[in-house]
Amino acid sequence: MKKYSELSKDELLTLQKDLNEQYKDACSKGLKLNMARGLPSKEQLNMEADFFNTLNPQSDFMSEAGIDCRNYGELIGITEARKLMADMMEVSPDEIIVFGNSSLNIMYDTVARSMLHGVCGSTPWCKLDKIKFLCPVPGYDRHFAITEQFGIEMINIPLNEDGPDMDMVEEYVNNDPAVKGIWCVPKYSNPSGVTYSDETVKRFASLKPAASDFRIYWDNAYTIHHLYNGKEDQLLEILDECKKAGNPDMVFKFCSTSKVTFPGSGIAALATSANNIDFVKKIITIQTIGHDKLNQLRHVRYFKDFEGMKNHMKKHAEIIRPKFDLVVGTLNKELGELGVGTWTNPNGGYFVSFDAMNGCAKNIVSMCKEAGVVMTGAGATYPYKKDPNDSNIRIAPTFPCIEDLAKALEIFVLCVKLASVNKLLEG
Amino acid sequence: MKKYSELSKDELLTLQKDLNEQYKDACSKGLKLNMARGLPSKEQLNMEADFFNTLNPQSDFMSEAGIDCRNYGELIGITEARKLMADMMEVSPDEIIVFGNSSLNIMYDTVARSMLHGVCGSTPWCKLDKIKFLCPVPGYDRHFAITEQFGIEMINIPLNEDGPDMDMVEEYVNNDPAVKGIWCVPKYSNPSGVTYSDETVKRFASLKPAASDFRIYWDNAYTIHHLYNGKEDQLLEILDECKKAGNPDMVFKFCSTSKVTFPGSGIAALATSANNIDFVKKIITIQTIGHDKLNQLRHVRYFKDFEGMKNHMKKHAEIIRPKFDLVVGTLNKELGELGVGTWTNPNGGYFVSFDAMNGCAKNIVSMCKEAGVVMTGAGATYPYKKDPNDSNIRIAPTFPCIEDLAKALEIFVLCVKLASVNKLLEG
Repeated sequence: MKKYSELSKDELLTLQKDLNEQYKDACSKGLKLNMARGLPSKEQLNMEADFFNTLNPQSDFMSEAGIDCRNYGELIGITEARKLMADMMEVSPDEIIVFGNSSLNIMYDTVARSMLHGVCGSTPWCKLDKIKFLCPVPGYDRHFAITEQFGIEMINIPLNEDGPDMDMVEEYVNNDPAVKGIWCVPKYSNPSGVTYSDETVKRFASLKPAASDFRIYWDNAYTIHHLYNGKEDQLLEILDECKKAGNPDMVFKFCSTSKVTFPGSGIAALATSANNIDFVKKIITIQTIGHDKLNQLRHVRYFKDFEGMKNHMKKHAEIIRPKFDLVVGTLNKELGELGVGTWTNPNGGYFVSFDAMNGCAKNIVSMCKEAGVVMTGAGATYPYKKDPNDSNIRIAPTFPCIEDLAKALEIFVLCVKLASVNKLLEG
Repeated sequence: MKKYSELSKDELLTLQKDLNEQYKDACSKGLKLNMARGLPSKEQLNMEADFFNTLNPQSDFMSEAGIDCRNYGELIGITEARKLMADMMEVSPDEIIVFGNSSLNIMYDTVARSMLHGVCGSTPWCKLDKIKFLCPVPGYDRHFAITEQFGIEMINIPLNEDGPDMDMVEEYVNNDPAVKGIWCVPKYSNPSGVTYSDETVKRFASLKPAASDFRIYWDNAYTIHHLYNGKEDQLLEILDECKKAGNPDMVFKFCSTSKVTFPGSGIAALATSANNIDFVKKIITIQTIGHDKLNQLRHVRYFKDFEGMKNHMKKHAEIIRPKFDLVVGTLNKELGELGVGTWTNPNGGYFVSFDAMNGCAKNIVSMCKEAGVVMTGAGATYPYKKDPNDSNIRIAPTFPCIEDLAKALEIFVLCVKLASVNKLLEG
């Protein structure tokens, strides 16, 4: 098969006619498939049935520290939940606050808190004229939505194979005091699946921020979410690197069990320095009396310890890996020689990132939708939903069963082909 | 027994000596008792054992609307949880957002949201020079802590038998555009146990606020928390009254099941107009993907419906009522004729409010502490922890078992007597 760009106009027109017919046919099938969001599948959720035996009427509800988990208290989480999340997040339990069910909520509140109260004594951001965040792209739409809601200016930073373009990051952070943060998904990044190299992490840790209240927003959402394909990525622990580099307070690290137990019913935590913890505690002690300790207890007793949690992730991987194999296999097979796009082949996380020919992403996503396949909106992976190349599409393969995924991918590659041919004929 | 104020100096000195000896004796016992916070007792918590059977490995986790409660989604709560909370809060399900585990957290976030984003299009409060909240006193310390943290000026409003002094409320709200809110616990108020009269609620509903973003922060924490002593208080439903009075958007109503199921592991909700709901949804859709739907499902399936919840509250009352009887009985018996204080005798809620002779509250609380009985801090029931009369003490009788409560009350009345005698001898 030739590259599309090497086809003559007549060849393209013939191809277009053929693809249009296939597409019409696909549309007539009335499919309803979804590859839009990083949701665990029913099969993954069913695997967790024993979770609902963890606490029962005969349970002892006391924490290790002798706290009745059915009553008020323990603002920063019960000891054993802090220990579990500390192990998961590779820090000490002293550096952990366990919150409620959502790390996104912690991130939002962390930015909201900075807007209203500053960071460890700095001027509240709402009193400043201009606040800026750096945004490695493509990235996670919900991060960008937070900073957008607060009117924070977002600056695109290219995300390379080894992490964000650190020359640009250093240039901004070390010189512009309005730059107060950077959004990072450092491992199996959303959507590209990239894991930051040791060199990148060390350069992060050695930043010399112009703003004392600059923080790295380190959303390590996929820290143990390997595909177990024999090629697990390793990420250097950044809190420790920051300590070594003399920047102990520079990171807020976020994590949750949303994709370990249940989205919406997991536990989430913040990991950061003792200084930052003290500041955050002072604020949140007014915001709540405490989070759901029974759910913390459920998690600890379900997994026993971090080893239990990791073993558990292997079972998730057994379900997820064939789906990633199908995505990458299908793209390789169907598009591999056509020169109409590139895609990632990650070792973990929840996404495959697809880059279409420039100017094609919106068309592909809207054609997919027309044929009954919902994708993440084109542009979603960029601040303000503006992908300057209209090229990036996030593929989320985990939710559909493998049969549905195959059908959805069939539509997707068809739409990529057709949109690319249309583009070439326009050009 | 004579009133203390009618005793001669010699009689007071003799009494002081005797009380001092009793107090010394009490201190030597090494008691560790707590009447500080409104916590359910172990007996109440044990009563809920079946809650932990509600969801089990064999459960169907689908909501009525066909949503898998183990996965992401349903930002404002599953239909059946909205229905349950709507019944509890006497509004329509359309007027409900079910949040996480804490109504305090909803209140905090509601104020924080107003600071950052205004209310339904008004100027964000953080951009204004001065924001004021009215605070009926004595009131709930955690309300005052929220407004204090945001630098909102708090104005004391006397809380009478039928609710706040509405002449003052109208004067402030209808004339001062800096007045953006009032904190209310309208039923079995914390700490006085007062329930607002129909007249008071109607006057609230008919306010003509100078500020378009003025809202009533209606914390109906004890809506179904009767003592079932045959004298249940009734409270007019304020959303409905506000609609009738042409002020449909003027109230944020808060409630939770913290003292129905478990503190920290209940579900909490906001009830408000469709307009306000739309505004809040726009903001919180960025803050979180959704709250804990499994816990919502547990609550719905545990209670079946609002009737089930109300029946359940009668069982709580069976445990709580004897404690209130003991408090009020002990105060009547020990202090009834001494003229050293007044106290409430509520029909529900979690507190008895005690007013000592002016200038005695701090001393009483600190003497109690010395003797091993922790009370809510004196002043806590006033903004900035400043009780102008140093008189009010909140008694929280629910947590200790009845034997411990009796011991704690013995110490308390002793300290009231001694502090009062000391005061009279000073004066």
